[in-house]
Amino acid sequence: MIDCPLPYEENDVITSAHGAGGKTMHKFLRDLVYETLGNSFLNTQHDGAILNLNGKTAFSTDSYVVSPAFFPGGNIGDLAVNGTVNDLAMCGAKARYLSLSCILEEGIPVSRVYDVLISVKNAAEYAGVNIVTGDTKVVENGKGDGIYLNTSGIGSIHDRADIAHTRIEEGMSIIVSNDIAAHGMAIMALREQLNLSPTILSDTQPLHRPVLTLLDWFGDKVIMLRDATRGGLATVLNEWTSMVDLGIELEEQTIPVKNEVSSLCEILGIDPLYVANEGVFVMVLPGTIAHEALEIMHTLPECKGASIIGKFTSNHKGKVVVKSMYGGNRVVGMLAGDPLPRIC
Amino acid sequence: MIDCPLPYEENDVITSAHGAGGKTMHKFLRDLVYETLGNSFLNTQHDGAILNLNGKTAFSTDSYVVSPAFFPGGNIGDLAVNGTVNDLAMCGAKARYLSLSCILEEGIPVSRVYDVLISVKNAAEYAGVNIVTGDTKVVENGKGDGIYLNTSGIGSIHDRADIAHTRIEEGMSIIVSNDIAAHGMAIMALREQLNLSPTILSDTQPLHRPVLTLLDWFGDKVIMLRDATRGGLATVLNEWTSMVDLGIELEEQTIPVKNEVSSLCEILGIDPLYVANEGVFVMVLPGTIAHEALEIMHTLPECKGASIIGKFTSNHKGKVVVKSMYGGNRVVGMLAGDPLPRIC
Repeated sequence: MIDCPLPYEENDVITSAHGAGGKTMHKFLRDLVYETLGNSFLNTQHDGAILNLNGKTAFSTDSYVVSPAFFPGGNIGDLAVNGTVNDLAMCGAKARYLSLSCILEEGIPVSRVYDVLISVKNAAEYAGVNIVTGDTKVVENGKGDGIYLNTSGIGSIHDRADIAHTRIEEGMSIIVSNDIAAHGMAIMALREQLNLSPTILSDTQPLHRPVLTLLDWFGDKVIMLRDATRGGLATVLNEWTSMVDLGIELEEQTIPVKNEVSSLCEILGIDPLYVANEGVFVMVLPGTIAHEALEIMHTLPECKGASIIGKFTSNHKGKVVVKSMYGGNRVVGMLAGDPLPRIC
Repeated sequence: MIDCPLPYEENDVITSAHGAGGKTMHKFLRDLVYETLGNSFLNTQHDGAILNLNGKTAFSTDSYVVSPAFFPGGNIGDLAVNGTVNDLAMCGAKARYLSLSCILEEGIPVSRVYDVLISVKNAAEYAGVNIVTGDTKVVENGKGDGIYLNTSGIGSIHDRADIAHTRIEEGMSIIVSNDIAAHGMAIMALREQLNLSPTILSDTQPLHRPVLTLLDWFGDKVIMLRDATRGGLATVLNEWTSMVDLGIELEEQTIPVKNEVSSLCEILGIDPLYVANEGVFVMVLPGTIAHEALEIMHTLPECKGASIIGKFTSNHKGKVVVKSMYGGNRVVGMLAGDPLPRIC
């Protein structure tokens, strides 16, 4: 049930005037943007937001070009909020302020932009973050693809966080926070027009709550964090082995993948280790506390599928090696090419 | 003379793999981005930058889709740095940290991206700001237009700044910091393939130095600042009259426009008051100090053409009225439509 009139006419489309700085843009900002996302920062309508910040702060940015922009489990709006919230969380930070910048393609329905803004609003509320400043540009038909977003974010770093790959040591455990490959496979199923049952949903979700809980418990014993987005779990692990003088050993059967996701990966010939996630992080911590951390994670809604998947080793330095459940070993290299373009 | 080998082969083009998170993207980041823009923040290659911030801070974002991306006087790279430095300056802040996010179109030469990065580097150095975090996405041919950028920025606000439209009062003076309409007309001349002599150059430049100098001199007597970008001077002034219960009175002959710019405006039938600037700000301050401020501005390289153009009045509330040199009056409304699409 719609309680109030929608702030546009049914057939309104985006025109270049929406990005021109004049009357049309001001009406668009007033009726759609401020009405949907408004708060005391945004409502000053200044060139930037004025914030009071103190102490260690994280700053991050991401542009979003996911295609299609709407997919099972989310759309480009919540993806853009959660993505930057998560980049900040991986620095040990709680996101406080986000910017939102839109590149709109002439001719797309205003209603579609509104749907995205509603998702931005809901995701920001759920993550406890304010959209405090923004921008809108319009490009001609054929020079964009509906809607591209950029979010940048500022977050306050947990007092006891000291997340740095330089602190990784041999024997440290690697935990993945949930089952992998759902986001990428949700997009692939949609692109291939596969009607799967159950429908694979994107895992897009904010990750600061579990990260802050783990920092409350373990402080600087949380050695390293990374969300496994583009390039998937394998890419995160290869980045790490390229940064430290160690290798990684994984136990294949401990890597969590939902049945419907692994089935689709098999059908399409895609290795789930390389598939993008939007609500999964990978954590390094001393082996001595790995099981305790895992127990705590299993009590958190974002980490129901958490699993200890392997450890750092001085064997095969620079390489990520997966031990299969049948005893064989395979080296998992860094992603080559782009099997899943425009996944985020 | 090129002293060192360029970090790409002559015919390299951007492919989707440059945005996929794998090997190609890592090589691109290492050889082009970190090599060009690297600093202690960026080189950690984390999901975000870790900063120490204290006190009143400004936060701003802008996406850039200017077409063509290279124009007399600059390109999308320095435009993107200066644009966000200037948005922060309009909050009374010195930009300290910028993010840089690129949306690249498949098939464009890597050399073109490199040229933009070099401009970003030079503009950042000139403005005294670090690029501390970033992102790259690639879209298919026909779903972008070469290169779109987003910069977001964090700046420290001057101790004595108190910039707010709510402090505007009747009689206060309006100063424009330099001659107007150069950026928009530089782009228009290029699009129309007019070979003018002298060539009109974009005015893109950072504005924090004159703003901070004025804040050092006048503190909270600087009432309001705005850079006159999209929609030009007229749009800024109309925004102000829509926010306060006053009108604005301008003296036409005091509005600075270079001869070659006003000639081209006349030929193309465009009012320079509506043309975008990328290195001009508009300032409100008490009439009693306007002439002193103007003298100081004339000593600053960014403000050689500064001029007192008018004042706030309780006559014709909500309206901007220009008194022509021949005695007539005309109302200058807010921009309708989009005479100059994709100007920034």
